[in-house]
Amino acid sequence: MRGILVTSDREQAVFEAGIKLGALYHQWVGTPISRHSAASIEAAIEKAVILQPFVEEITVKLDRSLMTENRFGYSELCGLMYDVEIVTRVGFSYCRARLVPEKGYPFMSVVECNEISGISYH
Amino acid sequence: MRGILVTSDREQAVFEAGIKLGALYHQWVGTPISRHSAASIEAAIEKAVILQPFVEEITVKLDRSLMTENRFGYSELCGLMYDVEIVTRVGFSYCRARLVPEKGYPFMSVVECNEISGISYH
Amino acid sequence: MRGILVTSDREQAVFEAGIKLGALYHQWVGTPISRHSAASIEAAIEKAVILQPFVEEITVKLDRSLMTENRFGYSELCGLMYDVEIVTRVGFSYCRARLVPEKGYPFMSVVECNEISGISYH
Amino acid sequence: MRGILVTSDREQAVFEAGIKLGALYHQWVGTPISRHSAASIEAAIEKAVILQPFVEEITVKLDRSLMTENRFGYSELCGLMYDVEIVTRVGFSYCRARLVPEKGYPFMSVVECNEISGISYH
Repeated sequence: MRGILVTSDREQAVFEAGIKLGALYHQWVGTPISRHSAASIEAAIEKAVILQPFVEEITVKLDRSLMTENRFGYSELCGLMYDVEIVTRVGFSYCRARLVPEKGYPFMSVVECNEISGISYH
Repeated sequence: MRGILVTSDREQAVFEAGIKLGALYHQWVGTPISRHSAASIEAAIEKAVILQPFVEEITVKLDRSLMTENRFGYSELCGLMYDVEIVTRVGFSYCRARLVPEKGYPFMSVVECNEISGISYH
Repeated sequence: MRGILVTSDREQAVFEAGIKLGALYHQWVGTPISRHSAASIEAAIEKAVILQPFVEEITVKLDRSLMTENRFGYSELCGLMYDVEIVTRVGFSYCRARLVPEKGYPFMSVVECNEISGISYH
Repeated sequence: MRGILVTSDREQAVFEAGIKLGALYHQWVGTPISRHSAASIEAAIEKAVILQPFVEEITVKLDRSLMTENRFGYSELCGLMYDVEIVTRVGFSYCRARLVPEKGYPFMSVVECNEISGISYH
């Protein structure tokens, strides 16, 4: 077993993407929601997440088709409604990650990592 | 000890006001927030609460003066930021209740109960 | 319309019961849970709620039969799992309220209000 | 810019650690708590987190010294109370990460990544 104590910028960007997806999931699950209010909730989530460190982009779409009305005419935000894409950046490294339903589970995954080469003067 | 099994409409309206204030408090505490995003969060809370049964009116103001920036430039929604007023109605009974800071505690209280007389035909 | 500015102890007890049920619902919805961990979550909810003002008793049972395993072997605490009974007291007035599923909706209701007569010396 | 579409097991372990820390933070912030109930909440958090995929170990300590009593005799779980260490594993890669206060901010960081060599037959 060998230990690598210092994580790279890329690993750090991956870590931050995980934090933000885990955080938003649990912050907002359970919120009363309907098709009419969904856009407002999407905007609020995006504006809350973009404040956090290392977040470059965040897009939140909530699946209206799952917003079936209970007998009082509304629904609750549940994990399977989320379609979220986030881009985090640490140094020159970017991580794009998603939260989308996959086989009935709200699945979070890294889509890709990119690194921008530093500018070289020569 | 005597039991009163059936609650009145007025008591029911009071109960519903309590539910909604308790619910919104815990749903939204911890949300990343800043002075720039506060209006979006206020709107989202209002739109979420108004969906729920027996809610007639809801006004949410979040105290910007408490949104001091942490070292990453944002804050977190905490209990003392809330200034909320809600009106619930059950039958002809209304309850107006508030959540506002009082001596350093986010205090929920019933402001007033009103009853509209039914229309009498004679 | 007539305004009743001062609420009675009984109304206050009803209000407090509503607050606590609304609060616990949204605080704990979304928690990862299984049949093995359910007792620990029940205990934690009870111990959190009993701390709050005006709470005399709290019993939380979570419906294990709804804890169906997702593909990673666990479930999430959802509103319909709750079977909660709470007793609040303000002065000599008690309110017993419940949160239980009713026709597919996590329903909160006042079960009964009781008043203890003050001790009379004569 | 070059894209690396497939993340390694190590990056995946880092991502999962981030998810779990972000999730638990927002799930539990705001919970009513006191020095007497803290152990119960710690146990509930640990039992909730260990259920989730890729989690090998989780230790949660909540800072009692910050549990100052409000005028009703309790406190609320806030971000700075957390001292959490988590180990996630994907394949042969482990990630140890923490959530601890650092200069007044609840800071999440990767402590180390380890890889166990696969068994070689020769």
